[in-house]
Amino acid sequence: MSVASCLPPPHISGPHVGVEEHLLPKYPSNIGLQTTDAPVRKLPVVQAKPVPRGTASFETMRAALLDAFDAKVPRDYHLPRELIENPPTNVSGIPTSCGILSEDEIEITENYDAVGLVAALAKQRYTAVAVATAFCKRAIIAHQLTCCLTSWFMDEAIEQAKELDDYMIKNGKPIGPLHGLPISIKEHIAIRGTSSSHGYFGGIGMDDTDSEMVAILRSQGAVFYCKTNQPQSIMHLESDSHWGRTLNPFNIHLSSGGSTGGEAALIAMKGSVIGVGTDIGGSIRGPSAFCGIYGFKPTSNILPMRGFSRGTFPGELNVLASTGPMGRSLRDMDFFMQSILSARPHLANPELIPHPWGSIEAPLGRRLKIGFINNDGFIMPQPPVKRALSWAKALLSDPKYGDLVEMKDFKVFGAAEAWDKVRLMYWPDGGQLTRDAIMSTGEPVHPLTKSICQTAEPLGMQTAGGVTLMRDERDNFRHAFAKSWTEQDVDIVMGPAFVGPASAHDTAFYWTYTSLYNLADYPGAVVPTPIKAELGEEYDSNYVPLSDACQHVKEMWETGNFEGAPINLQIVARRYHDHELFRALNVLKDILNLA
Amino acid sequence: MSVASCLPPPHISGPHVGVEEHLLPKYPSNIGLQTTDAPVRKLPVVQAKPVPRGTASFETMRAALLDAFDAKVPRDYHLPRELIENPPTNVSGIPTSCGILSEDEIEITENYDAVGLVAALAKQRYTAVAVATAFCKRAIIAHQLTCCLTSWFMDEAIEQAKELDDYMIKNGKPIGPLHGLPISIKEHIAIRGTSSSHGYFGGIGMDDTDSEMVAILRSQGAVFYCKTNQPQSIMHLESDSHWGRTLNPFNIHLSSGGSTGGEAALIAMKGSVIGVGTDIGGSIRGPSAFCGIYGFKPTSNILPMRGFSRGTFPGELNVLASTGPMGRSLRDMDFFMQSILSARPHLANPELIPHPWGSIEAPLGRRLKIGFINNDGFIMPQPPVKRALSWAKALLSDPKYGDLVEMKDFKVFGAAEAWDKVRLMYWPDGGQLTRDAIMSTGEPVHPLTKSICQTAEPLGMQTAGGVTLMRDERDNFRHAFAKSWTEQDVDIVMGPAFVGPASAHDTAFYWTYTSLYNLADYPGAVVPTPIKAELGEEYDSNYVPLSDACQHVKEMWETGNFEGAPINLQIVARRYHDHELFRALNVLKDILNLA
Repeated sequence: MSVASCLPPPHISGPHVGVEEHLLPKYPSNIGLQTTDAPVRKLPVVQAKPVPRGTASFETMRAALLDAFDAKVPRDYHLPRELIENPPTNVSGIPTSCGILSEDEIEITENYDAVGLVAALAKQRYTAVAVATAFCKRAIIAHQLTCCLTSWFMDEAIEQAKELDDYMIKNGKPIGPLHGLPISIKEHIAIRGTSSSHGYFGGIGMDDTDSEMVAILRSQGAVFYCKTNQPQSIMHLESDSHWGRTLNPFNIHLSSGGSTGGEAALIAMKGSVIGVGTDIGGSIRGPSAFCGIYGFKPTSNILPMRGFSRGTFPGELNVLASTGPMGRSLRDMDFFMQSILSARPHLANPELIPHPWGSIEAPLGRRLKIGFINNDGFIMPQPPVKRALSWAKALLSDPKYGDLVEMKDFKVFGAAEAWDKVRLMYWPDGGQLTRDAIMSTGEPVHPLTKSICQTAEPLGMQTAGGVTLMRDERDNFRHAFAKSWTEQDVDIVMGPAFVGPASAHDTAFYWTYTSLYNLADYPGAVVPTPIKAELGEEYDSNYVPLSDACQHVKEMWETGNFEGAPINLQIVARRYHDHELFRALNVLKDILNLA
Repeated sequence: MSVASCLPPPHISGPHVGVEEHLLPKYPSNIGLQTTDAPVRKLPVVQAKPVPRGTASFETMRAALLDAFDAKVPRDYHLPRELIENPPTNVSGIPTSCGILSEDEIEITENYDAVGLVAALAKQRYTAVAVATAFCKRAIIAHQLTCCLTSWFMDEAIEQAKELDDYMIKNGKPIGPLHGLPISIKEHIAIRGTSSSHGYFGGIGMDDTDSEMVAILRSQGAVFYCKTNQPQSIMHLESDSHWGRTLNPFNIHLSSGGSTGGEAALIAMKGSVIGVGTDIGGSIRGPSAFCGIYGFKPTSNILPMRGFSRGTFPGELNVLASTGPMGRSLRDMDFFMQSILSARPHLANPELIPHPWGSIEAPLGRRLKIGFINNDGFIMPQPPVKRALSWAKALLSDPKYGDLVEMKDFKVFGAAEAWDKVRLMYWPDGGQLTRDAIMSTGEPVHPLTKSICQTAEPLGMQTAGGVTLMRDERDNFRHAFAKSWTEQDVDIVMGPAFVGPASAHDTAFYWTYTSLYNLADYPGAVVPTPIKAELGEEYDSNYVPLSDACQHVKEMWETGNFEGAPINLQIVARRYHDHELFRALNVLKDILNLA
């Protein structure tokens, strides 16, 4: 189904297109509105750096899409235009101060994680309608400040919540373990009655059935109210699409990360308590780290992805994507896994491997062996990441935890090689199918789309024989990686989630610390630390670049301003050891003071 | 490494090539020796139907290969040439009557399954040398009658057995759970110091390391003594290669099955107690059924296959092969699974899914729901298979087992569609890479190689984009198949293992009853029944063909002679439910009187 059926005809917003175009710089150096190089939006949205413009006909269609979104938002939920035009660098505090949310709504959206919220709903402390209302309102506030949404459907959410409240009144008990819990969903994941895309205009369509994951969540009582932004082609570690560019709530000159960057910004703005993302190179872990929230990428084929995309992606011949939760606490991620897996999705979906999910609280009965990654031998992390590593290492090395954990320095196998390989493996078609689909509507190819395709592009479309050899190479890498892990005798590894804090816009070039574990297909979680990037932090005086990429990362640090950006760390376990990873995280919980 | 390094130079046997060629019909209608259209072999081997001849230079190389094999076999183990020239139809009794084996050797090779034999070895009832000697001798007898071997290395086996005996004397206990157990191995699977191939001459090479599976078996005390025949390209359900054609021990005018047909014939001849095969379309289950032994194809990525082949096979982009045991009893297959999985191979091999293997004897605590397949809606099985189905159905429907099992008729989803799809999916290269490799040495393309490639050949080499769509189609089929299974609410299904008993040579065209479960990737076991094909069995008078293939199968029945061929049945469980399948088989054990 084409986008045409869910949009007003282009001529409605056509006259506005390009009105102010000649008056304004194309890439304002600093803060800008969506309106600086595009038609005035009915719902103004902060755009610190606009996305590239396409052909006139594309911009007409795009304006119509945005118009249709904006038209659904009641005036009462609009932030002052003055604020949008002159936003502070850190917008995370605005939802509670803007006056749009009631005291109760602030309490509902601020004071709970998902486990806490479903408990409060089950005890009827709040109605599902009250909870849905609070999150719908806060989400649309968050959107105006960070451009985190692609769909917002408050009416439908309230309707769904009403049904749950009726059920509760009639039956005196929740409909399921997620009764009344609002869950935000990444744009490409199908929710019936909403539209989805691959992060570009061509191929947007309406979905008439829920994806398997959404169906399970719905059957357990979840309420859907919005979908969240992702980058063009869903293949950046930032989130810049035809919907606009998602900003980091703590520093709008930085990215929220990607590809699940809309989720990360929304959750960090507390416009969602828990959301669903996908990750083929860091797309859950990267944005979670950029925005200081919890995120978990399972091993592939543990959680159901059937119905997540309308089409196919040749990159999955080599590297499978994975879906997982993003949220406010470790226990929420555990709760999410438990909820989905209790539905035994492997029976309906034979791609899935049965992965029973028991309690993560049973003692290990031995010390947890932690391999600690100071750097991956390819790119030295930027100063605040090193500071976060030191923080964690100091805590974990405290003799008082000597019965719980054993720390070892871990040498990462093949990080540079993995990065070379994985960039080819994402594009066995040379990126051709994606580029063609993007450009078919006059949409411009964004800089980070070009960047991630550029190694594979000259090789063009592979043959079946070529793909077979590529997969063999992948498997050889995986075996060597597993061998190195075994030789180092660790249960989990802990290290950076990214080369630095959140990237400045259009500069998230190096996803090496996360994509390695997609190539290897190991489960990984990122968790917040109390560390935030500060002004004036410097590289060690004895720094020697590990690679050209390493040198580039240093230059980006020295020419950027990352103040206030949170720092997460990443914890990884062996392939298919997802539950073991959570048992390990539970050991770390008290030591690192995780939520 | 090329074949040259492990073979005598071609000129040694060159002069014999084609000596008698002009004197003999190319395809004798009935019994024939290897010698009927090829040089006189030092070790004559029954060849009821010779394999096609290639170019003169190919035949020269091939003769050298066979010569090198033959040269290792002591004269004392040669069967009388008179017997080879005039073999009975059923050769299965010859090993015990030929006088080459001692009483003890007959006892060792006849009276045990693998579990029994390792128990006898552990109790020092036999030395490892005695056991190895017995099986080496019986294997080479079996080979002369069925052409089941591709390598035979008695000296090395005895050497290995001696070391085990020394260990036992020194330590008073077995070296591991498989102490002294001889295990036969399919040719393509690497054993260090032996050669392997893909079933064609080009690319034969020596292996200098054990494949993972072989290494595990070796570390547990297994003794290796031979490798077994497989078809050209390993992609037939018969076993005709440059090594010759493997015959069915119970009727040499029939095939032993393939692609693990050398194993099946060898085990049926009791020249092996347990062997290792692989299966991408029925290659464990087909030959096991043809020869009346037990065979199990696990779900893919449960058992280790690393190092099984020197090259890659593009078909595995779509359908993964799987490895498993073939042997004399259900408990041996269970023992094999337990032995391999106890080594936790998933730690070294990240392709593998952890699959803990506990006891299969714990009661289910409920009735086992059996879906019974009378036919797959595509090809009606031939009369003796129907008789075996009736036999099983009668037993399983006996009210005295009503507390144990619940029988339902099962409607197979998409058998015809699956057969159409899978034949394309095996060859995303259009078969080109395989054909080129076969023909590179002057080897002729065998009829069944042509047959299985012919659907895909006109499509030629697929692109990465094409493969992606093919896999999407596969996944859609798998989901629909799982949905049908779930709707019919069964734990396992039971039905035919093949459209008939063993095929007449070069006629195993339809593997539909097994390849379906490769496309779906469900684990399946075949078990013997007491039923054997008889002369004069007829199709029902009201038979109506289900398809052209069905009609063709009927014609083959009516023009063939399958007397004495055993009939197995197949039992299948859901994907990744391998251990559950064995728990179900354990329920069936007493009812169907399984070993």
